[in-house]
Amino acid sequence: MSQKPSLPKGTRDFSPIQMARRNYIFDTIKKVYKKYGFQQIETPAMENLNTLIGTGGEESDKLIFKILNSGDYLAKVDFKQLQTSNFKLLTSFIAEKALHYDLTVPFARYVVQNQNDITFPFRRFQIQPVWRADRPQKGRYREFYQCDADIIGSNSLLNEVDLIKIIDDIFTELFKGKLDYTISINNRKILAGIAEVIGVPDKLIDITVAIDKLDKIGVNKVLAELSTKITNENAIKKITPLFELKGDFTEKINFLKEFLSNSTIGQQGIEELTTVFNYVNLLGIKSAKLVLDFTLARGLGYYTGTIIEVKVANFPSICGGGRYDDLTGKFGLTNVSGVGISFGADRIYDVLLGNDLYPEFKGDTTQVLFYNYGEGEEDICLKYLFQLREAGINAEFYPDTVKQKRQYNFATKKRIKYVVTIRSNEIASGKLTVKNMETGEQESITISKLISKLQ
Amino acid sequence: MSQKPSLPKGTRDFSPIQMARRNYIFDTIKKVYKKYGFQQIETPAMENLNTLIGTGGEESDKLIFKILNSGDYLAKVDFKQLQTSNFKLLTSFIAEKALHYDLTVPFARYVVQNQNDITFPFRRFQIQPVWRADRPQKGRYREFYQCDADIIGSNSLLNEVDLIKIIDDIFTELFKGKLDYTISINNRKILAGIAEVIGVPDKLIDITVAIDKLDKIGVNKVLAELSTKITNENAIKKITPLFELKGDFTEKINFLKEFLSNSTIGQQGIEELTTVFNYVNLLGIKSAKLVLDFTLARGLGYYTGTIIEVKVANFPSICGGGRYDDLTGKFGLTNVSGVGISFGADRIYDVLLGNDLYPEFKGDTTQVLFYNYGEGEEDICLKYLFQLREAGINAEFYPDTVKQKRQYNFATKKRIKYVVTIRSNEIASGKLTVKNMETGEQESITISKLISKLQ
Repeated sequence: MSQKPSLPKGTRDFSPIQMARRNYIFDTIKKVYKKYGFQQIETPAMENLNTLIGTGGEESDKLIFKILNSGDYLAKVDFKQLQTSNFKLLTSFIAEKALHYDLTVPFARYVVQNQNDITFPFRRFQIQPVWRADRPQKGRYREFYQCDADIIGSNSLLNEVDLIKIIDDIFTELFKGKLDYTISINNRKILAGIAEVIGVPDKLIDITVAIDKLDKIGVNKVLAELSTKITNENAIKKITPLFELKGDFTEKINFLKEFLSNSTIGQQGIEELTTVFNYVNLLGIKSAKLVLDFTLARGLGYYTGTIIEVKVANFPSICGGGRYDDLTGKFGLTNVSGVGISFGADRIYDVLLGNDLYPEFKGDTTQVLFYNYGEGEEDICLKYLFQLREAGINAEFYPDTVKQKRQYNFATKKRIKYVVTIRSNEIASGKLTVKNMETGEQESITISKLISKLQ
Repeated sequence: MSQKPSLPKGTRDFSPIQMARRNYIFDTIKKVYKKYGFQQIETPAMENLNTLIGTGGEESDKLIFKILNSGDYLAKVDFKQLQTSNFKLLTSFIAEKALHYDLTVPFARYVVQNQNDITFPFRRFQIQPVWRADRPQKGRYREFYQCDADIIGSNSLLNEVDLIKIIDDIFTELFKGKLDYTISINNRKILAGIAEVIGVPDKLIDITVAIDKLDKIGVNKVLAELSTKITNENAIKKITPLFELKGDFTEKINFLKEFLSNSTIGQQGIEELTTVFNYVNLLGIKSAKLVLDFTLARGLGYYTGTIIEVKVANFPSICGGGRYDDLTGKFGLTNVSGVGISFGADRIYDVLLGNDLYPEFKGDTTQVLFYNYGEGEEDICLKYLFQLREAGINAEFYPDTVKQKRQYNFATKKRIKYVVTIRSNEIASGKLTVKNMETGEQESITISKLISKLQ
């Protein structure tokens, strides 16, 4: 009995042309990562559930896909507990493993587990799928790829500089100067400084959650939201001038210096940001627009210093990251600072497609198809076919003797540029007829001419 | 509270050097697949459970990792059924998705789902991890990579020829002529012919299961096992001469022609094998030893024609495949014949490592490290660093001003070949001191000299 096949919601297949585009993105990112001294690692799709839970809060825990224990997973379950019908409790008995929902937690686990073999500072990159039981929607999937680079074991701000230059290098190559994009940077210490100078240091999270929405909802609604969280009217009054903040990097920094003059941590944040900004200016930026955005918060529970986000118009964030001071603490290795970025391959895919920025792909499909007339010409076709392949040219022989239309149709649909025909009366001359499927032109040349033409 | 990190059993991390080796294997296989006109696809790690179950028999079903439904997965479970504590029944309620255990079933699903967009014959390759809840043991993992190539929608034996040539190309490149390996081929029709001529056509499975063990347990034990399955003594007597079968391909074929002279299907199998053999001989073999092995059965429930297996001494099979006539039938697309092979990347990894066959990897790590003396030399180091990177050379600046020993140690452990030092008194001269960490030699050269040296 046959079933109509389908895929779990939020997951996708990738066809040959989609794979060519995706590999183009991955290869560009990989090449740049390597140029900056990053080395690739991979971790398994499955981790122990207790490695993953509790790292991103309860909301994150809900997004984790759990894997049912194999065999009779109910054998060890206390039957009374089973009867409670409490799924959270039952999960702890029947699912010991889960799919990773990011690459950061597995990396932290990797670092701790391999700390004696790793030479710090460790520059690693990792390009793998992650899984999240999110509600699927346009541009949001349950299986998607992250491309992470982190430097762990160094406090130097030179690492931040490298990450910003990496972003600039990658999008200069991918966007070819045809698409504007912004690298926003901020520092958690500035956010802490703001909370401090307006007199509500304990409201840091509430403040950042609210001001993070400035772009979307505007000043008045942000102030309204703040009023519901902060009873201290004076604090609201004090923060208001911040929302008028305009100008270039230096102008904003000067304003913040003044605004945060009474906060040690705020001054530290300004110093860090300025240092990074000066280095990047010294080295030069190719195509990015680097802006200071004091409203940028991104996963604040996690970052302790620099915060980075990359955006193009009309798309959600395509890259983000920051510095964290205690990523490995959960696994028993404390006081190890790290900084990293993550490119969202699936969003970059959409941006490039929407802006017609993919190059023409050549190596992803067959370059030459040998037309199949039947047994008479078979031996000579096979001989030439393998000469092309030995020369590194992607080639194939249509395997069946079918109608002309079907063979040419095959070439067109597979985007094969050249179709070679050899008629029995051509064999003696050592020539083959090569048709260019794009122009319709035909020429009669030897196999060595064809090889040099294509190499 | 910290926990000691660990991985689920049967899963592994891959360190930078392991990744370099694995990528070398994947890149070699990909390059050859593309040369033969195969195009890459990817399918999600998760499939609907009903896509996967029932395709490989009950034993296979047990190996499938099921994914717990997200949210309150018990909400829709009938409480009475839950109380039965029957885990198989419960699974059907609480796990709708699962991790694929091979790439063949997802490919079949893909073909049926995308049949209107695919141009047949479709040459696809797919390199992805698969997951099996197998008992982990040496060389057997719960997450491992398969590298599959299939041609679907063509009956031509030319496809089999391409697959054998692909195997020969790949192992010629990976083994560099330094390691012997055997491509064994057989045909299910020959196995069916044997069962027919000895008078027990209904015992095909029993016969193949028994003779498949010939290498391991010897003739006598195979005959003993056959006697327990086949009561017809005459059949056992008739099959015995087969086990004396020796000689090269032609000698074996001649023997089988005689032995199977009364079986139409057997003769068909011989004709198919001979055709494939003759084509391969016409084109030539680079390094493989091609042998006819009538005991080769490999997943007989599945293959309907050619069967292929590749072995090196002291290792389990490193590649296998065959022709199947009804892979897509389960999903409603019948009469589509396909043939494919699958390389086991993890076993090939072990074979290459065990035989010292990896090349020296250069691009996987940093080539040049800039020694960090502190702020005085920082600007000039950064300038040169980025000149190297712009020239495509993997380079990094040690980010912190730490002791000399630690910086050189870092270079050695990361296998960085050159360490550049710039002392304040060298800045004016525009030269840098380059130390070759392998030979210990030092030279004082300009940045442009260093770039041309490394490119």
